[in-house]
Amino acid sequence: MSDVDRWLSDFDSALSSGDSASAAALFHEESFWRDLVAFTWNLKTVEGPAEIEAMLDATLEHIQPSGWRTTEPPDTADGITTAWIAFETAAGRGNGLLRLRDGKAWTLLTALYELKGHEEPKGTHRPKGVIHGADPDRVTWLEDRQREAEELGYSVDPEVVIVGGGQGAIGLGARLRQLGVPTIICERNERPGDSWRRRYKSLCLHDPVWYDHLPYIKFPENWPVFSPKDKIGDWLEMYARVMELNYWGSTTVQSASFDPDEERWTVQVERAGQAITLRPRQLVLATGMSSQPNMPEIEGMSGFKGDQHHSSKHPGPDAYAGKKAVVIGSNNSAHDICAALWEVGADVTMVQRSSTHIVRSGTLMEIGLGALYSEEAVAAGVTTEKADLIFASLPYRILHEFQIPLYDQMRERDKDFYDRLEAAGFQLDWGEDGSGLFMKYLRRGSGYYIDVGASDLVADGKIKLAHGKVARLTDDAVELEDGTTLPADLVVYATGYNSMNGWAAELISQDVADRVGKVWGLGSDTTKDPGPWEGEQRNMWKPTQQDNLWFHGGNLHQSRHYSLYLALQLKARLEGIETPVYGLQEVHHLA
Amino acid sequence: MSDVDRWLSDFDSALSSGDSASAAALFHEESFWRDLVAFTWNLKTVEGPAEIEAMLDATLEHIQPSGWRTTEPPDTADGITTAWIAFETAAGRGNGLLRLRDGKAWTLLTALYELKGHEEPKGTHRPKGVIHGADPDRVTWLEDRQREAEELGYSVDPEVVIVGGGQGAIGLGARLRQLGVPTIICERNERPGDSWRRRYKSLCLHDPVWYDHLPYIKFPENWPVFSPKDKIGDWLEMYARVMELNYWGSTTVQSASFDPDEERWTVQVERAGQAITLRPRQLVLATGMSSQPNMPEIEGMSGFKGDQHHSSKHPGPDAYAGKKAVVIGSNNSAHDICAALWEVGADVTMVQRSSTHIVRSGTLMEIGLGALYSEEAVAAGVTTEKADLIFASLPYRILHEFQIPLYDQMRERDKDFYDRLEAAGFQLDWGEDGSGLFMKYLRRGSGYYIDVGASDLVADGKIKLAHGKVARLTDDAVELEDGTTLPADLVVYATGYNSMNGWAAELISQDVADRVGKVWGLGSDTTKDPGPWEGEQRNMWKPTQQDNLWFHGGNLHQSRHYSLYLALQLKARLEGIETPVYGLQEVHHLA
Repeated sequence: MSDVDRWLSDFDSALSSGDSASAAALFHEESFWRDLVAFTWNLKTVEGPAEIEAMLDATLEHIQPSGWRTTEPPDTADGITTAWIAFETAAGRGNGLLRLRDGKAWTLLTALYELKGHEEPKGTHRPKGVIHGADPDRVTWLEDRQREAEELGYSVDPEVVIVGGGQGAIGLGARLRQLGVPTIICERNERPGDSWRRRYKSLCLHDPVWYDHLPYIKFPENWPVFSPKDKIGDWLEMYARVMELNYWGSTTVQSASFDPDEERWTVQVERAGQAITLRPRQLVLATGMSSQPNMPEIEGMSGFKGDQHHSSKHPGPDAYAGKKAVVIGSNNSAHDICAALWEVGADVTMVQRSSTHIVRSGTLMEIGLGALYSEEAVAAGVTTEKADLIFASLPYRILHEFQIPLYDQMRERDKDFYDRLEAAGFQLDWGEDGSGLFMKYLRRGSGYYIDVGASDLVADGKIKLAHGKVARLTDDAVELEDGTTLPADLVVYATGYNSMNGWAAELISQDVADRVGKVWGLGSDTTKDPGPWEGEQRNMWKPTQQDNLWFHGGNLHQSRHYSLYLALQLKARLEGIETPVYGLQEVHHLA
Repeated sequence: MSDVDRWLSDFDSALSSGDSASAAALFHEESFWRDLVAFTWNLKTVEGPAEIEAMLDATLEHIQPSGWRTTEPPDTADGITTAWIAFETAAGRGNGLLRLRDGKAWTLLTALYELKGHEEPKGTHRPKGVIHGADPDRVTWLEDRQREAEELGYSVDPEVVIVGGGQGAIGLGARLRQLGVPTIICERNERPGDSWRRRYKSLCLHDPVWYDHLPYIKFPENWPVFSPKDKIGDWLEMYARVMELNYWGSTTVQSASFDPDEERWTVQVERAGQAITLRPRQLVLATGMSSQPNMPEIEGMSGFKGDQHHSSKHPGPDAYAGKKAVVIGSNNSAHDICAALWEVGADVTMVQRSSTHIVRSGTLMEIGLGALYSEEAVAAGVTTEKADLIFASLPYRILHEFQIPLYDQMRERDKDFYDRLEAAGFQLDWGEDGSGLFMKYLRRGSGYYIDVGASDLVADGKIKLAHGKVARLTDDAVELEDGTTLPADLVVYATGYNSMNGWAAELISQDVADRVGKVWGLGSDTTKDPGPWEGEQRNMWKPTQQDNLWFHGGNLHQSRHYSLYLALQLKARLEGIETPVYGLQEVHHLA
């Protein structure tokens, strides 16, 4: 019997006999069990035997786990044995990844993938499509779709309303459709993909194609590595159509309030000018991390005679050829906008307010993502689904330890590039602990630029640099605190975004926004991610302190993967499956 | 050294030294070499050592084949060893399937899959999408697409014009786009998929999903087994969009003529009311096997007071509730239309003019297609691409021998069903040699119904049956030759379609249609497929007697697979690669 089989057998015995202590004793003192909805009906990491025992004490009786087994032969490297596993619970089926060292568990990922009796209709269980035989009351697929479109939200209440119709909402909507959860997606723009189409014209995805797949339909093998914005817009539009989503375009959500007795929301929307009241059980805010612009208030703004706007409202460079542009900020948007303005012949100054982490796109792709998300990974049998689980199996607590050596490699490889940038006066950082881009993204969602060309313009002085805080605007210039005056026809505030619970404040109430608290971040006690340690992304894809309110989003990888767990949580509630939440996140920060 | 390796080594030596006789001697007396564009720049089957030697004598010097090898371990069963192989030629790379018996070849399939130096940009060679770096002359993806749409067909000549915009054209168009062959698809309807949407409302695909994939983007695993017509319409529309086809909807092609000196066609089209002259090098007729309605001329037709139309023009049953309907014919369309009319409460009579082959959909799926196109086949590693090659590797000459036992099984399994149908007076057949549906399809493209429910209505007398030829129409009835009078408010002529070269007559000239001759059929000398034996589908996907004129179509499986070979032939001609055609098909029948 292999180490893994013996461990699983012991684990199974302990769990089956309700012996939490023995089960917990199978884990190292430093160990991490990350559970995605299988045991905790939550996204939750517990650490070390004591926390594991407490979690099992609270959940075992209800969850009734069983059938622990490997699904392929384990791998051993550097003293760690890694095994793909599967198991069942009373309510569903799960999979995961186990890492053993010296016969004890170092990390365990358990992830629910389907609910018993509510499996998705796919493969051998896909719908038949045609109904064979003759039937005078036959309803065709088209008639059925048309009837649903006419009724849902009017005479039939949706179970779920998703606010925002970007890639996150679309992927989640597709999963909910497959699970038979009646859902309406409300999107301000007319068509799926418009929020991409309306952005500046040179924009392409900064993540490569292998990282970006939606559920169910993968991009074809001829899809570009970095998808141009209009092309991804077309893909989202077609996807929403063929996945049969109830996608309400040109629809603004105006307010929402929850009735705890009825356990339903009242959501006021305006659809193409018509006021409609929706009464869903569940409300999902999928408005994106970049939906609440952080617009600074600066002395003299109202007197400025040129154009000024937040980066999210920037119309693109075309009107600014030959003009003087000042871009406040030095992260992704700032770089992209500066480069596009330079391309049309604007005189561009970037105002760097604090140090920025920069990684070249090719380097990031190769060193940062290559092992999991690349053509080579696919060829090596690392499917998107496997890559997502491997990534999810690395505990957030120690993730930076895996990241630091990668970024050390990157710094070495691109030394000349960084030297040139610093020589030009650009202030660089690598995150407070040197763990680089992905940790910055998980902790604060900002503070970096994935270089696709703008850094060369900075290094060459084609994009000019200024430093420090903005003191005031005059009618035709930006004045910095050090007295520098930057004449300007255009000021772009690439000053980032606020926490997504700002949307809850806007749509629901400040009270609910405060009850839910800050969205995003791990509690790492680094810049813009205050402690205490949470161990999971705050409020994302899991129950919040407001009943029946959920946040969904993140990058394409996160939206794809975590939409599964959010969809299963929503489906379980629709079906009346008991979902006792273990370790509901506490609120320590309002925003 | 295994049998296969030895054979390939001997074969390679003989071919490399130009020794056609030795190469041919490696084949059995009864043997079949099917070549798809790799040796013959044609779709061509040669039989036995003499024909093989003659083919090699004509092609070897130019083709320069090399590098013969297996791509996975061969299988042996029933004395036949089957091996997946790969090879190269001077111009390209090929794959195929070899079957050995007692060390000699029984069947060989050689299929070109790419041209050297013109490989499709996919996988590790996929386009980058973004152009990193800053560039004042940057052209975005959208601008590039818009410019192409403005120029192609106006200031820039297309290389290829495809007449007809159904699934065949769309799949071919996608391949040509990937190969960089500027192509315009001209479709009468407004949107891709409309030719499906406009058909009767209960229509679903009669072939299951595993058989129906398009190139590049497979249907997802939740796609219905039998796709409803409007759903497949939506899929085609999104596919044309994301594959970036130049799809001209609302465009009718009015005439075409070929200038042999310039080697260009002059194609007159009307696009949304505007007359445009296109000057492509190549013209592809992809109007479908079902585009030239065969409308009978019957005495008294002009005096009939009710509605009458060909099945292709049938608007659906809704207007005929409570009316008397007579449907002339007993194949697929006739059955579907009769059942739909019965469903709305029409009084329906089917006029059977000759015996019909009927197979139940579930039975066909299981016994007829299951080994190659099913969830089980996918699970057993038979990808769509492999299934297509396996199917293509079975020589048409002996294909019926593989089919007859399958249809014997079906007859046995559904005996009660067939007994009931015969008891109701329905005249059944199984093809002249008992080889069933697929051979009927390949030989004549008609003569069968895949039962999805209408046969029960026939067996139960709910759809009434009449037999024989129509003698005449009166003002309110159909009169048969045996004197039967069938009162009618509606007559539907489900009388099939004419050969596709009728389209060449209509668009180009009768002269060109006659030069090209009959399209479809194998020359099997069975009903509607007169000899002599051709060995391949007449005029389909390969050079015709008219330079630069091509026919494309067939079912979804054929369109998907053979569009590859047609696309490679067109690309080779665009790039000036020499393409000497071996065994150009002779014309024996005008239509």
